Amino acid sequence: MLTYDLSNRDGKTMYEYLYECIRDDIMQGRIKENEKLPSKRMLAKQHSISLKTVENAYEQLLLEGYLYTRERSGYYAGAVEAGYEIKESGAIYEPIPQEEYRINLANNQAALDKFPYSQWVKVMREVLTVRERELLNTVPFQGAYELRKEIANYLYDFRGMQVSPDRIIIGAGTEYLYGRLIHLLGRERLYAVEDPGYQKITKLYAANDVSWKYIGIDENGIKVDELAESGANVVHVSPGHHFPTGTIMPVGRRQKLLEWAAEERDRYIIEDDYDSEFRFVKRPVPAMQSMDVNHRVIYMNNFSKTLAPSIRISYMVLPQKLMDRYINTMNFYSCTVSAFEQYAMVEFMQKGYFERHIQRMKNYYKSKRDSIVKLLQESRLMELLTIEEKDAGNHFLLKLHTPLSDMQIKGAMREAGVKVDFLSEFCMQNKEEHSHTLIVNYSNLTEEDFQYALRRLEEILL
Amino acid sequence: MLTYDLSNRDGKTMYEYLYECIRDDIMQGRIKENEKLPSKRMLAKQHSISLKTVENAYEQLLLEGYLYTRERSGYYAGAVEAGYEIKESGAIYEPIPQEEYRINLANNQAALDKFPYSQWVKVMREVLTVRERELLNTVPFQGAYELRKEIANYLYDFRGMQVSPDRIIIGAGTEYLYGRLIHLLGRERLYAVEDPGYQKITKLYAANDVSWKYIGIDENGIKVDELAESGANVVHVSPGHHFPTGTIMPVGRRQKLLEWAAEERDRYIIEDDYDSEFRFVKRPVPAMQSMDVNHRVIYMNNFSKTLAPSIRISYMVLPQKLMDRYINTMNFYSCTVSAFEQYAMVEFMQKGYFERHIQRMKNYYKSKRDSIVKLLQESRLMELLTIEEKDAGNHFLLKLHTPLSDMQIKGAMREAGVKVDFLSEFCMQNKEEHSHTLIVNYSNLTEEDFQYALRRLEEILL
Repeated sequence: MLTYDLSNRDGKTMYEYLYECIRDDIMQGRIKENEKLPSKRMLAKQHSISLKTVENAYEQLLLEGYLYTRERSGYYAGAVEAGYEIKESGAIYEPIPQEEYRINLANNQAALDKFPYSQWVKVMREVLTVRERELLNTVPFQGAYELRKEIANYLYDFRGMQVSPDRIIIGAGTEYLYGRLIHLLGRERLYAVEDPGYQKITKLYAANDVSWKYIGIDENGIKVDELAESGANVVHVSPGHHFPTGTIMPVGRRQKLLEWAAEERDRYIIEDDYDSEFRFVKRPVPAMQSMDVNHRVIYMNNFSKTLAPSIRISYMVLPQKLMDRYINTMNFYSCTVSAFEQYAMVEFMQKGYFERHIQRMKNYYKSKRDSIVKLLQESRLMELLTIEEKDAGNHFLLKLHTPLSDMQIKGAMREAGVKVDFLSEFCMQNKEEHSHTLIVNYSNLTEEDFQYALRRLEEILL
Repeated sequence: MLTYDLSNRDGKTMYEYLYECIRDDIMQGRIKENEKLPSKRMLAKQHSISLKTVENAYEQLLLEGYLYTRERSGYYAGAVEAGYEIKESGAIYEPIPQEEYRINLANNQAALDKFPYSQWVKVMREVLTVRERELLNTVPFQGAYELRKEIANYLYDFRGMQVSPDRIIIGAGTEYLYGRLIHLLGRERLYAVEDPGYQKITKLYAANDVSWKYIGIDENGIKVDELAESGANVVHVSPGHHFPTGTIMPVGRRQKLLEWAAEERDRYIIEDDYDSEFRFVKRPVPAMQSMDVNHRVIYMNNFSKTLAPSIRISYMVLPQKLMDRYINTMNFYSCTVSAFEQYAMVEFMQKGYFERHIQRMKNYYKSKRDSIVKLLQESRLMELLTIEEKDAGNHFLLKLHTPLSDMQIKGAMREAGVKVDFLSEFCMQNKEEHSHTLIVNYSNLTEEDFQYALRRLEEILL
């Protein structure tokens, strides 16, 4: 016979409280398995509560399996084991702390204060007003058609590429698309990466249980002979803007690379075209993909570097053969970019904001580079260094003539609150060959910051 | 000696046109490798164009590697091979067509017309106004802290779960998080899935080169004995709302499953809690995770099903041990959800809109279900069917007593323009046992639509 004190329920509704009392009795074994419970009517009468309350409590217990019923016979305790109880205390929150520097010469993010926020807000508000239907429906797995069309036009106008939107896949970040790509090409392959190069790629390979090989670079980019000997059949390169040196792969080397790919079926080149927009040249260098007559180039780019890191829109262009394979094997992957941001980007591009932003940033980075290079040339350090790759976009290299090791300088700078990266840190093999080369990312740097960093560097080197 | 007709440049700038002329001469071999080019001055004089124009053209050709220079000796044609030319014609666009039905009983998407669009717009506009800083900066790899905090509170209030935001990972879609999870747990494992069950999961396993085993279910859910014999050490279940039957796993079975996990180290249960919000019961069934004392349950849920499919925000709760592993091995994966949507969701939850939306939808689905069940009970079909799992949320099952096969009925319905799914279609083994069970998703169904589908079904069955 169940008897509960229903007067003190600390805020819980009668039905909730009754539910918990019975549940706990069953959990604690005070009500045994298969034991018959009082009829709803009797329990209600006994506690002088409404029948409905008891019905609700029994219904819930039934639903969760604490009770079961037998035809025309009533409610019985189900099979449960004691010892489990629902924990009740709240959770403790504390965010993960971030490493702090006074000045960061290693940060190559876009200059946020130059992001055309008001225009971005404008198109977003517009999208909210006029696109309700599109915003609520799922976009195609490869991304909103309108955005793919805009991207195709952009690639045609600025990268000399001629691609159908049907071969474009939009995803939330290059890492995500890269994951898809590894699935698409297969894990058993051997992947080749530039050394020095973009190390995150190898982290992705590692996380995907994929094996890779480092291929050295010379002043023209990746060494094709070394690549040919490596046995790799996929290579990741950034011909428009090598990371982190910033060099452009000349047409001759591009052709050699394309020939390497053509030599055997199923060889592919992944062209990572990130940041190529920011070259300080009269016209952009056409993408390697535009020279690809054998459909071996997979083109990748994103808007995170050109607009803001928080905008997670990347895209890749697949050769038709791979696109067909993608549709057959992976079209069940929903697009990872929200409809809202995709249509905002459509408006942003259609209104010409994107193009103007790129142009504005080019000028901005150029003048920033000029002022920073000027500071360098005026500094007493000049005799100890040479400036390389000044046209790279938002960073350049400082070749230092000093007996100190890269790590000694990095350490001393860290103590002065300045974060610097050396080219050798992006090297896996023969770091020596690439030593004493400091990378200056100035996209987020003020003249004062750089002046400060320069003084510290002088103190260390002179 | 280069001589070009620079009068007819169809719209191109002089420098651009000159650049192309020389580039093509080099590509076509009219200018041989290592052949010396005329000095800039001479070329300018000869064509009576400005020196600056020639300089720009040479600069570009140099940059792209068509030319190289020798100290104090001038410009020479670089090493390129003929045969490549940049394609020029525009691209053809046509979107991929979608399969069309007049009525779709298989669509279990949220009812879009019930989405609180104005409230969503309101919070979005607010976020645009007050959150500029957060919107432009990168969010932590596991998602914005504020959103994880809101989710933790929600899970505590409605799912009986007590988790720190530090164990929550936000991603663009459950598929994406599932991919991360497979990397985290390892591909060499054997994964177990419910049969019948959510088939997309096995597609994800396939795409990730992971092997899995189907485990049968009975009226209480997955068969734990069969699971124990299978050799699997990870199991994917939806105890709060089995797909597609809609059954709830009773507490006894949950305990058995938790014990199975505890038996051996490194066994895990993936609790897919999708849609559990929409139960027609007085209070939500607590998540299995809330009973997990051994840290073996990985909890997954998303907002796409509860709000709109276009909102790609999913999340998972990891046991501390796995969270540590994630941080050590995968924190370089940037969060795939845009900062903007994350903060919009924060506002949406903080203002209580989300909670109210869930409540509103529950009532809406309930009344919709009632009216549709009423239509059924009035129909002449009633003698041929029984209704099951009426409380599942936004669908129920129709057990049909008919000699016709599921595929015969499905085909006949398709010809009538009605898409229906049968439970057997979600079965891999012993389809027979689950045959003749039609799934009615009514979340997007009008009474008229259902009336129409009902008439067709009558014509087929009677």
